[in-house]
Amino acid sequence: MSASLLEVCAWDAEDPLREVAARFVRPEGLIYLDGNSLGAAPVDAYGRLEAAVAGEWAQGLVRSWNGADWIGAPARIGAKIAHLIGARPSEVVVADSTSVNLFKLLVAALQRQAPRGVILSEPGEFPTDLYVAQGVAATLPGVSLRLLPAEELVAAIGADVGVVMLTHVHYRTGARRDMAAITQRAREAGALVIWDLSHSAGAVQVDLAGARAELAVGCGYKYLNGGPGAPAYLYVAERRQAELSSPLTGWMGHDDPFEFGDVYRPAAGMDRFLVGTPPMLSMLALECGVDQFEGVDMAAVEAKARRLCSLFIERVEDRCGGHGLQLITPCAPARRGGHVSFTHPDAYAIMQALIERGVIGDFRGPDVLRCGFAPLYTRFEDVWRAVEVLAEVLNTDAWRDPRYQTRARVT
Amino acid sequence: MSASLLEVCAWDAEDPLREVAARFVRPEGLIYLDGNSLGAAPVDAYGRLEAAVAGEWAQGLVRSWNGADWIGAPARIGAKIAHLIGARPSEVVVADSTSVNLFKLLVAALQRQAPRGVILSEPGEFPTDLYVAQGVAATLPGVSLRLLPAEELVAAIGADVGVVMLTHVHYRTGARRDMAAITQRAREAGALVIWDLSHSAGAVQVDLAGARAELAVGCGYKYLNGGPGAPAYLYVAERRQAELSSPLTGWMGHDDPFEFGDVYRPAAGMDRFLVGTPPMLSMLALECGVDQFEGVDMAAVEAKARRLCSLFIERVEDRCGGHGLQLITPCAPARRGGHVSFTHPDAYAIMQALIERGVIGDFRGPDVLRCGFAPLYTRFEDVWRAVEVLAEVLNTDAWRDPRYQTRARVT
Repeated sequence: MSASLLEVCAWDAEDPLREVAARFVRPEGLIYLDGNSLGAAPVDAYGRLEAAVAGEWAQGLVRSWNGADWIGAPARIGAKIAHLIGARPSEVVVADSTSVNLFKLLVAALQRQAPRGVILSEPGEFPTDLYVAQGVAATLPGVSLRLLPAEELVAAIGADVGVVMLTHVHYRTGARRDMAAITQRAREAGALVIWDLSHSAGAVQVDLAGARAELAVGCGYKYLNGGPGAPAYLYVAERRQAELSSPLTGWMGHDDPFEFGDVYRPAAGMDRFLVGTPPMLSMLALECGVDQFEGVDMAAVEAKARRLCSLFIERVEDRCGGHGLQLITPCAPARRGGHVSFTHPDAYAIMQALIERGVIGDFRGPDVLRCGFAPLYTRFEDVWRAVEVLAEVLNTDAWRDPRYQTRARVT
Repeated sequence: MSASLLEVCAWDAEDPLREVAARFVRPEGLIYLDGNSLGAAPVDAYGRLEAAVAGEWAQGLVRSWNGADWIGAPARIGAKIAHLIGARPSEVVVADSTSVNLFKLLVAALQRQAPRGVILSEPGEFPTDLYVAQGVAATLPGVSLRLLPAEELVAAIGADVGVVMLTHVHYRTGARRDMAAITQRAREAGALVIWDLSHSAGAVQVDLAGARAELAVGCGYKYLNGGPGAPAYLYVAERRQAELSSPLTGWMGHDDPFEFGDVYRPAAGMDRFLVGTPPMLSMLALECGVDQFEGVDMAAVEAKARRLCSLFIERVEDRCGGHGLQLITPCAPARRGGHVSFTHPDAYAIMQALIERGVIGDFRGPDVLRCGFAPLYTRFEDVWRAVEVLAEVLNTDAWRDPRYQTRARVT
């Protein structure tokens, strides 16, 4: 028997992260289970952007590059993210989008790994990662993308594989991969692994150093709460930085950006992975999002994510049986991230009905209902109540309403 | 004899753009001559960002991708920029940084132009453009960067040249190139030209269609007033879009981004040059900047830029003679953009003395004093008064103060 409302409210009252939830805006009448797609807005974000626009930009103007340390933002925010993912401050910078950062690391890694030109990944991986790999293959001679099912993948790291590219937590199933084991196996086989942390960092404990991971990218606008389309980050272990060259050699990656000479010389450390001038307002919103982790123990985040997901799964089993929902997320807490997915032939319509009733999760085509449980601000009560709404939608056939059947473009 | 204060105040009173200046924040006690580096903040920017953060993000959350049409922003803002540069709405999208966009177009153009692998440019061109070209040369086999002085460049477009890469207005000298003539000469020689409009769009009249230009990139945070590090844009003439493939193939460039399939298919039009999720807060600030051009006749912008620059040059000649300032910007108004540069062996110290006295221009190493005259908000009186401050700094040797001699990192 899964937990009662009374019980889960008691969990909320004892939650070591309960004070943190108050740092986020909570729209009236909404249960938000999509922080894995776009994180909630910190209460502070508005004040930060006000200061950035009305103060730093409007009054400080170009002087704010130094005066407000805009110039230091990529490394400064990178260092704060490093703290959340088990990296050193000097191993992470914020720049561009996840896709662009992945392109940089793929090209840099493959140039180092030549002639090992295969990028190994899995069918159904995060689409933009697969797309970027295809762009790299169309650009670099001798490079190709090979997709193998997860269970065969690790054993298939042959002598032609230069790079293994995987997401740490799968965007669709929520499955969490064993970063340490895969990294070790790849290293033994002479391949580098690029980890995409987009769906794990900020939701669960990530320990890049402990896993001896060497390369990673990640997203700023999901569990890091950086605002819509927030800049992304990349990680390169210190021991690899000097031997990797980004193909995107813009002025911010120059050893001396203010030299204004004709010849590119990459910066010594992670700055070499910077390219153009960063979108500062979005950068500062990201910093505000990351700052919400201040004082937060990532072990507590991990523990809460596990409990939130378990509660959801158990409540759905109890309350929504017989309606054809199939759990595609692993049951073992250590094998999943911060979101849970079920398939259903009418997943789209069911999600539309939920959204109209104030429960926001998302639909991933063709048949996935996905709900994310950002540990910083999701309450156990939210999960409990969301499942009650889902049960009602299923039990009353509310999702069959014709207006839920027409697909709009969704994100 | 150059114009008197009384005369220039009369010019301001008759300026057809005088109402537009009121759309921008004007910090008390400051004469801002650096809109070519970071454009001034529109008065509206603060309200726009407030709505974006407190409304669209905090309350709308993930629903705002459709509800606030975030998803349409790259094309929507691109269409507004198209209007300023003589392009069709379907020929411009906003994405990434100028450097990243240049990388996309260089690789796409060179793949089309193979085996013509030479990128032809000029020594002393905009540094990030040269750096990006070097990164492309290090990535694509058979590609190299060749630098030739401007006067030899056009005649040197040989059979091995795939792409000519030039800025429309030179960041340092302010010289404006003859876009139509160079584009025609390159076309005759079988080369494509990529124009960097960063220092011309928004300051002078740009007519891509009239020049039969095919490829261009440009910056959002200079004369377009998009805020610090605002996203950039790229232009591809309709007749070239289908034949060019970006190497950066992220999900936003997919023909159907919400298909979530494994195989990349580029979108039909300019969307194929999008990559990752755009930094929306910075995007919306850029849109606000671009919106300040509403109702503005670009011919009036061009006319005012010419007159502002001429006034500055004439006043400096009148008031600052004998101090070693050398004009490096062309005198003929049609051959320059919206900024004017002088060299001086002590340019750095002089600019520091100016900044401390509330006149903000910038220094470009090793010896350039650069002042920009953004036509939307710079008044003729500003120019006149700025030159008085410069004359005082020079006549009193104020710049020799030791505290102006130590170079800090500047942008």
